[in-house]
Amino acid sequence: MTQGRLKHFGWGREGEGLTAEEEAAALDRYPRLFKVEHFDEVTPPLLSEIELRRPRLAPPAALAPFCSSETYDRVAHTYGKSFSDYVRGLHGQYDNAPDVVAYPRNEAETAAVLDWAGSSQAALTPFGGGSSVVGGVEPQLDGTAYKAAITLDLRHLNRVLEIDRTSRAARIEAGIFGPALEAQLRPHELTLRHFPQSFEFSTLGGWIATRSGGHFASLYTHIDDFVESLRVVTPCGSLETRRLPGSGAGPSPDRLFIGSEGILGVITEAWMRLQDRPRFRAGGAVRFADFFTAARAVKAIAQAGLYPANCRILDPQEAHNTGAGDGTAAILVLAFECADHPLEAWMNRALECCAEHGGTPEQASSADGHREGAAGLWRNAFIRMPYARERLVRRAIIADTFETAITWERFETFHDKVKTATEAAIRDATGRPGQVTCRFTHVYPDGPAPYFTFHALGRHGDLLSQWRTIKNAASQALIAAGGTITHHHAVGRDHRPWYDKERPELFAGALRAAKGALDPQGLLNPGVLVDPCDSARRPA
Amino acid sequence: MTQGRLKHFGWGREGEGLTAEEEAAALDRYPRLFKVEHFDEVTPPLLSEIELRRPRLAPPAALAPFCSSETYDRVAHTYGKSFSDYVRGLHGQYDNAPDVVAYPRNEAETAAVLDWAGSSQAALTPFGGGSSVVGGVEPQLDGTAYKAAITLDLRHLNRVLEIDRTSRAARIEAGIFGPALEAQLRPHELTLRHFPQSFEFSTLGGWIATRSGGHFASLYTHIDDFVESLRVVTPCGSLETRRLPGSGAGPSPDRLFIGSEGILGVITEAWMRLQDRPRFRAGGAVRFADFFTAARAVKAIAQAGLYPANCRILDPQEAHNTGAGDGTAAILVLAFECADHPLEAWMNRALECCAEHGGTPEQASSADGHREGAAGLWRNAFIRMPYARERLVRRAIIADTFETAITWERFETFHDKVKTATEAAIRDATGRPGQVTCRFTHVYPDGPAPYFTFHALGRHGDLLSQWRTIKNAASQALIAAGGTITHHHAVGRDHRPWYDKERPELFAGALRAAKGALDPQGLLNPGVLVDPCDSARRPA
Repeated sequence: MTQGRLKHFGWGREGEGLTAEEEAAALDRYPRLFKVEHFDEVTPPLLSEIELRRPRLAPPAALAPFCSSETYDRVAHTYGKSFSDYVRGLHGQYDNAPDVVAYPRNEAETAAVLDWAGSSQAALTPFGGGSSVVGGVEPQLDGTAYKAAITLDLRHLNRVLEIDRTSRAARIEAGIFGPALEAQLRPHELTLRHFPQSFEFSTLGGWIATRSGGHFASLYTHIDDFVESLRVVTPCGSLETRRLPGSGAGPSPDRLFIGSEGILGVITEAWMRLQDRPRFRAGGAVRFADFFTAARAVKAIAQAGLYPANCRILDPQEAHNTGAGDGTAAILVLAFECADHPLEAWMNRALECCAEHGGTPEQASSADGHREGAAGLWRNAFIRMPYARERLVRRAIIADTFETAITWERFETFHDKVKTATEAAIRDATGRPGQVTCRFTHVYPDGPAPYFTFHALGRHGDLLSQWRTIKNAASQALIAAGGTITHHHAVGRDHRPWYDKERPELFAGALRAAKGALDPQGLLNPGVLVDPCDSARRPA
Repeated sequence: MTQGRLKHFGWGREGEGLTAEEEAAALDRYPRLFKVEHFDEVTPPLLSEIELRRPRLAPPAALAPFCSSETYDRVAHTYGKSFSDYVRGLHGQYDNAPDVVAYPRNEAETAAVLDWAGSSQAALTPFGGGSSVVGGVEPQLDGTAYKAAITLDLRHLNRVLEIDRTSRAARIEAGIFGPALEAQLRPHELTLRHFPQSFEFSTLGGWIATRSGGHFASLYTHIDDFVESLRVVTPCGSLETRRLPGSGAGPSPDRLFIGSEGILGVITEAWMRLQDRPRFRAGGAVRFADFFTAARAVKAIAQAGLYPANCRILDPQEAHNTGAGDGTAAILVLAFECADHPLEAWMNRALECCAEHGGTPEQASSADGHREGAAGLWRNAFIRMPYARERLVRRAIIADTFETAITWERFETFHDKVKTATEAAIRDATGRPGQVTCRFTHVYPDGPAPYFTFHALGRHGDLLSQWRTIKNAASQALIAAGGTITHHHAVGRDHRPWYDKERPELFAGALRAAKGALDPQGLLNPGVLVDPCDSARRPA
């Protein structure tokens, strides 16, 4: 099977993207929303038109066979997939391109690249699928501390190495993409069932390093809970945690590396807890008068101990935008799934919780109901969404998302404050109203994870500062109202100012110290999560 | 309500203990097991007979009102409740008694005690209920680094400060004991439902600092998952994490402090996730031909996504010892509970899993079935067990437990190796056979948490070295066979040699560095989890 290489600009592989029909549908409502008839369109440069600085270093002979300084490799590893990445890519700005991209084929080569980075005073950025929307993979170097930038792309570490059917676990290399992972598990009738929106173009190691949020809307929301043990290569050597179903031996070593965003080491392998493939399903969509009423029903479900696999509310506008509703009602996409037993009791009780809050089930409630109707429409839109962004940014349409979590007792006020602040910032930044919608991606007994989408019409040339005005206002509102700056998108560099307010300063000190112990030269992903300790930075 | 003060030797409060009838029952089978008719009995010294070194420091005037160097306070804070603690207490050995016990009444006083410890070069041991069975609260000082030992007893921080009924959470002071915590939640119809065996005489802060294992046999096994946010006082200041139902913002700050066993700071408050009080119950006991067959049924239940509140197997001998069985069958104690909905579907499917492995339900399967029959008998024995140990040790009976976790595919071999090694060590150490039994306390989709109990007849004078021979052999076997040195008892000082083999060395370096950032003088609980950094230890 031959697959095209990943695009240097945009989502997915070369040749992939929205059909003309999908593009028209994605653009359809913007003229009405922004009251314009025409969009100025800018075309991103061809790869051959992009100019890069000459590489500041070259790999030693032993590493050269798996390293590249070709323009394609450097350009395709400059950015993730954030809005600001797209804007800069659109204008051919690749100042932060890495000098070398290394594609190690095993752990020894990975360690060799780390050694090389240390001896050449180069910053090193671990790179999975490059789907970061928070500036997590861009080598933003401060001018004095580093002589060059190396990006470590783990795509060749792409195998399921070992299966433990009895314990339902597998040892898996960290550079594997979602579809390949599931394909290698399928013959064993096992599945990880971790399906972030980036599933096709993100990796196991990336999910772990960023505390990715996945398929399950309740209970097993983050990848964290599926990690049984880890292998990590640090500049000071490799470590491996024990395969244990549970432990109380000191602070969890895994939990230090889960969410470490590449600053402590490079995750090369993990034993992951797996699921049997589901055989029983129950689900459907439920309509509610409004978003908050739906939220109260979801709270009841979340506190009932039912643990639905899917339990996502779309506010009326978001339901309309994604084709899941007509804009007059909030839609709850509800689904249970299980390999072991029928789910009528679970689904019936969840529907009772909905009914107690005036929720009305949609028709199609067959066993596969959650694939049809409002739920199915929303699901398709969800999967194709990332392809739309590269088409919108060309037209100066600022379409972006941000996500958070908050306890139930603060949720309604929180939602209104964040939405109002974001709407106001859109008007301030662009001079015209935009739109802010909300859904829940995950729910907990003590609160939801609200996910906001906003739409604004910017202006080429000012796009980045307009976006930043909106993003800053939204982030500021999230943090001021008590939320987290990210429920599952990670911190990267884009969220740093608000992360720095969210986490206790003393914890940051402890994390910096831990980084100092594992990465004493401060090579790994500088600027992500913490600044390198001063003492850890060599003079240039 | 007046309560006696805590015993300086033994479990619970002064005046509490086994009745003569309970004591006879606890002793009943030992003559047969050890083939002896008589036990040499040693009586622990009266408090007035215990001699202590003169305190090496005295509190400054501002702290004196809540500090004590009385013999009772110092003796009652020398030890936890481990077997080696009991042996040394039995012989009046209190060389490691703290010089001063401080009972701060609020966070400011807690911080003042930390400051005082820093300025007087004293080691500081945080103390909850003192139920540690791993040497976690004994001030074992190395001779040169510290001038004195202060123990910080948090019992006056004993209030539920705030209730959030909507999110089902409460802000609770860390020094509160289990019963007081539940009593303060009851008017709000909420419960933490965290019932470790030490429940009556252990504290919320202690549970969090040691990653205590509680009521729920599946899903929410450790206190970890109930922590919504923490307040911690460190020698460098206080920190508070955000109340969030979930987050993906960097490595979890809470998870660094959960399980930190007092080496990073003193937990003073936590927002805890609570439960509604259960209204629906289903449960009972199920008999199996043998332990491994029962384990396979439990694996099926654990992998089915049913999440029983109780799912504990006793091997035939343990069932016999606790009165839950006749010794010919393994007993599974199974229970579901819920505040929201009837549990027939859950219980019926779990019983099917049992039947598929030849399990036979006992009679009493009423709604309160799990309180009756084998389940009820075992439960009573469980609650009273800690009171028996102070009676057994007087008679040189070595009765102790250790616990671990292992993945399913290794479990049977693991069990046999650990049991055999422990039995052999009992014969080596004591010259006669003893007994080793096993139960499961908690179960996961990928493996169980086996809990071993052993019985040996020692000899006064050699008791400590005999116990150590057995404990070392068991610990060695656990670690060699791939388990964890502790699933929920913690590491303390007793488990250090094996913990040091279990955790990656690079993680220990990161943890030491984090400790160096928060506790630069290495004041807190020296020797627990890690040795203080050399650079963090002042010369004497």
